[in-house]
Amino acid sequence: MAKFLTSRNEDYSQWYNELVTKAGLAEPAAVRGCMVIKPYGYAIWEKMQHQLDQMFKDTGHVNAYFPLLIPKSFFSKEADHVEGFAKECAVVTHYRLKNDPNGKGIVVDPEAKLEEEYIIRPTSETIIWNTYRNWIQSYRDLPILCNQWANVMRWEMRTRMFLRTAEFLWQEGHTAHATKEEAIAEANKMVRVYAEFAEKWMAVPVIMGSKSESERFAGALDTYTIEALMQDGKALQAGTSHFLGQNFAKAFDVLFTNPAGEREYVWATSWGVSTRLMGALIMAHSDDNGLVLPPKLAPLQVVIVPIYKSAEGLEQITKQVSSIVEALKAKGITVKYDDRDTQKPGWKFADYELKGVPVRLAMGERDLANCTIEVARRDTLTKETLPLEGIVEYVEKLLNDIQENIYRKALSFRDNMITKVDTYEEFKELLETKGGFFLCHWDGTPETEEKIKAETKATIRCIPFDSPEEEGKCMVTGKPSHRRVLIAKAY
Amino acid sequence: MAKFLTSRNEDYSQWYNELVTKAGLAEPAAVRGCMVIKPYGYAIWEKMQHQLDQMFKDTGHVNAYFPLLIPKSFFSKEADHVEGFAKECAVVTHYRLKNDPNGKGIVVDPEAKLEEEYIIRPTSETIIWNTYRNWIQSYRDLPILCNQWANVMRWEMRTRMFLRTAEFLWQEGHTAHATKEEAIAEANKMVRVYAEFAEKWMAVPVIMGSKSESERFAGALDTYTIEALMQDGKALQAGTSHFLGQNFAKAFDVLFTNPAGEREYVWATSWGVSTRLMGALIMAHSDDNGLVLPPKLAPLQVVIVPIYKSAEGLEQITKQVSSIVEALKAKGITVKYDDRDTQKPGWKFADYELKGVPVRLAMGERDLANCTIEVARRDTLTKETLPLEGIVEYVEKLLNDIQENIYRKALSFRDNMITKVDTYEEFKELLETKGGFFLCHWDGTPETEEKIKAETKATIRCIPFDSPEEEGKCMVTGKPSHRRVLIAKAY
Repeated sequence: MAKFLTSRNEDYSQWYNELVTKAGLAEPAAVRGCMVIKPYGYAIWEKMQHQLDQMFKDTGHVNAYFPLLIPKSFFSKEADHVEGFAKECAVVTHYRLKNDPNGKGIVVDPEAKLEEEYIIRPTSETIIWNTYRNWIQSYRDLPILCNQWANVMRWEMRTRMFLRTAEFLWQEGHTAHATKEEAIAEANKMVRVYAEFAEKWMAVPVIMGSKSESERFAGALDTYTIEALMQDGKALQAGTSHFLGQNFAKAFDVLFTNPAGEREYVWATSWGVSTRLMGALIMAHSDDNGLVLPPKLAPLQVVIVPIYKSAEGLEQITKQVSSIVEALKAKGITVKYDDRDTQKPGWKFADYELKGVPVRLAMGERDLANCTIEVARRDTLTKETLPLEGIVEYVEKLLNDIQENIYRKALSFRDNMITKVDTYEEFKELLETKGGFFLCHWDGTPETEEKIKAETKATIRCIPFDSPEEEGKCMVTGKPSHRRVLIAKAY
Repeated sequence: MAKFLTSRNEDYSQWYNELVTKAGLAEPAAVRGCMVIKPYGYAIWEKMQHQLDQMFKDTGHVNAYFPLLIPKSFFSKEADHVEGFAKECAVVTHYRLKNDPNGKGIVVDPEAKLEEEYIIRPTSETIIWNTYRNWIQSYRDLPILCNQWANVMRWEMRTRMFLRTAEFLWQEGHTAHATKEEAIAEANKMVRVYAEFAEKWMAVPVIMGSKSESERFAGALDTYTIEALMQDGKALQAGTSHFLGQNFAKAFDVLFTNPAGEREYVWATSWGVSTRLMGALIMAHSDDNGLVLPPKLAPLQVVIVPIYKSAEGLEQITKQVSSIVEALKAKGITVKYDDRDTQKPGWKFADYELKGVPVRLAMGERDLANCTIEVARRDTLTKETLPLEGIVEYVEKLLNDIQENIYRKALSFRDNMITKVDTYEEFKELLETKGGFFLCHWDGTPETEEKIKAETKATIRCIPFDSPEEEGKCMVTGKPSHRRVLIAKAY
């Protein structure tokens, strides 16, 4: 087998970039910081979308669509938000091109200058809350539980495919509530939906918690996050949910009449996950041979490759395999019989390994005679020869086993990479030698947080929901602390 | 019942706008020429998307995603295309805002001017063919059958919700082929997919045909279209498919090595439908009481309203209804039991009529005693009282009947509005008094086409695929013509 990829040990970052392009997931676009999501990558994203959308609907949400462009002035209305989002962004200033008077292609028509510039949405709180003002009069109009699947744009300086791109695809939920409690409960509910999706579908274990004040979403009173660990020991923020208080209602004059007849500002949340999840999926499980995909998100779950010496042999194998293909399809399993004669079996094996197809079946002429079939699993790179009888049920069960095994492996890795440390020296040393998550006492001040970040490049990922109360001393300042927080270097 | 809407006879355009907003489909946005697609409208669009996506996949296509922004220079590469698309468009010139030195909000940072401006995609041929150049080396890499679901933007001057908006949602297929014949067959196949979708799902009959040269897509050698007729006698172009020849391959240097080892330019198609289909759906079927939705695209197919005098009555009705709800759901029918006590039954009836729910069931206390239920159908506005026994099967069949009836009604209307005319005088008179489609002889010249358009505002909608050969004389110039073309005023 040809060596396709730089190994993870050699250069993790290079391995990732090569894997993304060679497995046909995405490639850099001709537009600065943007990517083309290729068909195989998009097929995985579609599966993610489909499941998330179902989970949003099951929790009472509906989809809608709001404009791509946001008037510049909207951003000035919420002071924190403008600092966080409206600075590095794509600005539309004109609405017409014309032929260059000097004959050099087309140029911007200076007469078609917009009175007010538009910003390509980096996130949609402002345009949505400007819209909600007209949707909400009374408590009877609440809650509003909207989600939007959309593209957004942030003029990032350092980009990496899926992890950080100027344009990316995401969903953004924007909900409006009559009470503070209800809004907090909603933000809590949605971070738990994200955690469930990450663990059950992506097979990626995550730690849920609250962000520290300085890591919050710009405009939020509280941000909840799910934090995953990649194989290089760095954390990846995979989804966030925000309790926005009444900030956007106040910025956009969104009030409702409560049952007592009084006017009150509406309470808000927003929550989102993006194509960044693709980066998390890739980096959490894949190996030096290529992608490892959890069966639930694999566009192709099973591939069957015939190994034959003659046209007659192929014909007999095809006949035998076709009933297996039909039976697998009948169980809702996505299967492909790859009888292309343009590629050799070895090439196909390597290619499906690169693409992370969970189960590969191969049938040769001897298998035909023995009524057997070779079953290879991608996650463990092991194979065995099994009787044809019962193979469909075996494969069905195997897909479930692989889903679980991938999760268990990631969980075990992650758990081994959570280290409790009590001194700053120990923290700094292990951060460099071991990496991963650290549970540390912190005095709760932005100053200490900033010092840790400046000195080690590690950040407070979250204050875990399940972090127990525990008396301790801040590892940096020695000041009292009542629970440990999660710290790591992060993507 | 309150009168919700201006009637169609009174003011068709006003009726449409009121219907779109009052039924909760869409509303104008704070961004010039853009709309907010509200949850109920988006739910219909999602059903359209879901079915179209399935049909694209069944015909061998895969989805991908290409960048929103297109470098300005890309548009200059295809001469016709730039004239058609790159003139009235949103131009991104800067990538940063900063605080106004005078303290008035935020302003564009003049130092963050892009070297080359970007255009928000009005259509993606250029960026996609620039990408395909790297995907295609040999005939083995062909065909490429990609589709993209995306937002696009055209700086339209006169906008109407769904029919023509600055930003709209659509899908754009972009395929690459080794031969001219294969590309033409693809373009043909896809316009037929659109026709099948329009007729079987939207219940909108359409006429398929080729566009005249001057009505073709900018950059196409041939454009195929489906043309629908609205209730006001105006045509609406509902979907197009383009045979692009080698124009984009030549503009972006996309060549492949054929089996004989020679380098050739790749052949292209593109095809798209948009949220404009929502406009067609609304205008084709709806009446003065509101939307009429074909059951296959109705987000809610059946609603059940209890009519009760006491809490005990409601309880008994609810008990009886719950088994019907479960049985309908088991058949895959979307059903809602609306037992809200905040609205009266009459209000609910009017609201569901406005929203076009195909079947409304109502159960009162007398029904409970008689083991009956009231069944109202939206398309005919008729109702009948039926025994409870067998009601689930009845409703299931009724939904199919309604789907067919809506189609037949639209077909009958459309067929009655196709007029063969042989003189220009007759054409002009009937165009004003009757409207609809006209089948006329035309001499095939752009000059005559332009004259008809200038004098009557009618355009050649298409040369229908099924228009038989027939010797005749152009109704304007008297020159010979060999088949009739379809002419109408259009949206």
